[in-house]
Amino acid sequence: MLYYGNIEEIENDIERVDAYMAEYLHDTSRNPMLNAVLETIIATKGKKVRPLLLLLAGRFGPQWPGSRDRLCKMGACIEMIHMASLIHDDIVDDAPMRRGRETVQSRFGKDMAVYAGDYVMSRILYYLFREATPETGMLLAKTVESMCYGEMCQLTCNFNTETTKSDYLNNIYGKTASLFIATCRIGAAESGCGVQSVEVFSEIGKHIGYLFQLRDDLLNFVSNVKREGKPVFTDFLNGTYTLPILHTLSHPQHGSRLKEMLQTVGLGGSSTFELEEIRKLIIQCQGIEFTRSMMKAHAADARELLATLPRKQAARGIYAVLDYLEGE
Amino acid sequence: MLYYGNIEEIENDIERVDAYMAEYLHDTSRNPMLNAVLETIIATKGKKVRPLLLLLAGRFGPQWPGSRDRLCKMGACIEMIHMASLIHDDIVDDAPMRRGRETVQSRFGKDMAVYAGDYVMSRILYYLFREATPETGMLLAKTVESMCYGEMCQLTCNFNTETTKSDYLNNIYGKTASLFIATCRIGAAESGCGVQSVEVFSEIGKHIGYLFQLRDDLLNFVSNVKREGKPVFTDFLNGTYTLPILHTLSHPQHGSRLKEMLQTVGLGGSSTFELEEIRKLIIQCQGIEFTRSMMKAHAADARELLATLPRKQAARGIYAVLDYLEGE
Repeated sequence: MLYYGNIEEIENDIERVDAYMAEYLHDTSRNPMLNAVLETIIATKGKKVRPLLLLLAGRFGPQWPGSRDRLCKMGACIEMIHMASLIHDDIVDDAPMRRGRETVQSRFGKDMAVYAGDYVMSRILYYLFREATPETGMLLAKTVESMCYGEMCQLTCNFNTETTKSDYLNNIYGKTASLFIATCRIGAAESGCGVQSVEVFSEIGKHIGYLFQLRDDLLNFVSNVKREGKPVFTDFLNGTYTLPILHTLSHPQHGSRLKEMLQTVGLGGSSTFELEEIRKLIIQCQGIEFTRSMMKAHAADARELLATLPRKQAARGIYAVLDYLEGE
Repeated sequence: MLYYGNIEEIENDIERVDAYMAEYLHDTSRNPMLNAVLETIIATKGKKVRPLLLLLAGRFGPQWPGSRDRLCKMGACIEMIHMASLIHDDIVDDAPMRRGRETVQSRFGKDMAVYAGDYVMSRILYYLFREATPETGMLLAKTVESMCYGEMCQLTCNFNTETTKSDYLNNIYGKTASLFIATCRIGAAESGCGVQSVEVFSEIGKHIGYLFQLRDDLLNFVSNVKREGKPVFTDFLNGTYTLPILHTLSHPQHGSRLKEMLQTVGLGGSSTFELEEIRKLIIQCQGIEFTRSMMKAHAADARELLATLPRKQAARGIYAVLDYLEGE
């Protein structure tokens, strides 16, 4: 769990989010197979950054009886949308591990993982129809559409050294930022914030989303398996060229060298020596630093926007999330 | 298109369903890749049995201003749920063709097909939140859950010669009958039928669903590529043991012979000669006839239920659908 600045009763609300997720993913079939699949899904539960942000944004409105509980339900649905998307991402990425646990696709095979992701989505759908307003439902539907679109665009960029930074930013906007935007927006709107504050929260969500994905992509270069619970240094081997790579590719002097090397790697001929050379090239071209500077810019924009909102204790929590993400 | 008994204005309504599907799947991104994917999806448009049934059931209630249009919208959503499920099924089945056209997975790869199915689902979700009642939304969510559950159970039965007929019937209930149940139910309910008629339509939908899947599974044995637009004689090679196989497996005399043969086939060692022997064995054990008798029983049950409802011109259309499905 993230440190979130000791906001009154927020821990209690996060526990309620957990309880709703357990309820929403509860297996009523008594089928051992389904049970095992659902347990695997629940076991890869993450840090719940999105529900936390939703709850924090939800402290900015006047609130009304029952609104706290609704926020917990919406937080559970949003975290489950994220979980469902990961099940399908892991198919595409051939990912063996996620958060230190075996993925659904690695434990039960890709075919099962296709339906497992759909299954989780059907559960979300049910509870959204039961609990959410049509506006929230429509927003989340558009968000899932953006997420799919971002992933599809990323696939078409795969192993393409002509991918631009702007392509990359569009892709991560869809696949990651859009859900953060919806998260902050729903938190603010459901607690009764005014239209203007809701728009500010959308923007804050966008910056946090970019920051989150830039950090995630950077960690693939600078982290280790143990800390992240998933393999590192794999993105570009799988053909996903993230910002450190793209920045290096655009380097007037060394870009062409990296391009050559990536083509070798793309042909499956990568040795430890070559990987080390790629890493050195990225560092030399300041690919890591450039990514960090972009992260800092998004964090700064989010902080600036937050400062325009009425002062609330919950802002401390959002600042803490920003500090955490910015500090890697 | 099916023959549906010349029901007044039904052709007009089916065209409206088509128009809504085109609207709901319209590509606003102007991205050539997404455009090509969506075109492939729309090109594999089928006979629209489900929207037709929904519209026919929708003629049984008193109706009200705008209800005809709502029925067309719901018909479009249900057909799209079916289309989205096929995109993911084709990944699992490695299907190269569907309705005589290349599948999304074969044209764009499995990774793209994962997201393409999710993308269609997100569009459905949006229009359901915009157009459907929460009750209809919840029913369809539960239906998608059943469909996934049925497919997941079918996967666990794969290449398993111990699969029982009861397992098989449970699997096809989930993967196929559940959507026919929802289809008939929504048609009846949205047109204002009373509770009892809605329940009768649920039952009719169930029998049509079983009939539909039994027929589809039978066609895999007795049809040819040209007629169906998809490969035949492939189900059991892929490890899906449908009723003709299961009935033969349970034959006291010849069951063990088929079991042996399936194990060879499962190891990838199937020759035309062996396939021919399997086909003969199935015919000898009346696997085809048993399946046909079950189809007839479901068609008869549906007709009997239909006869309990108030007489409407639209019943002729449902009888026509039953005749079509029963006649293979």
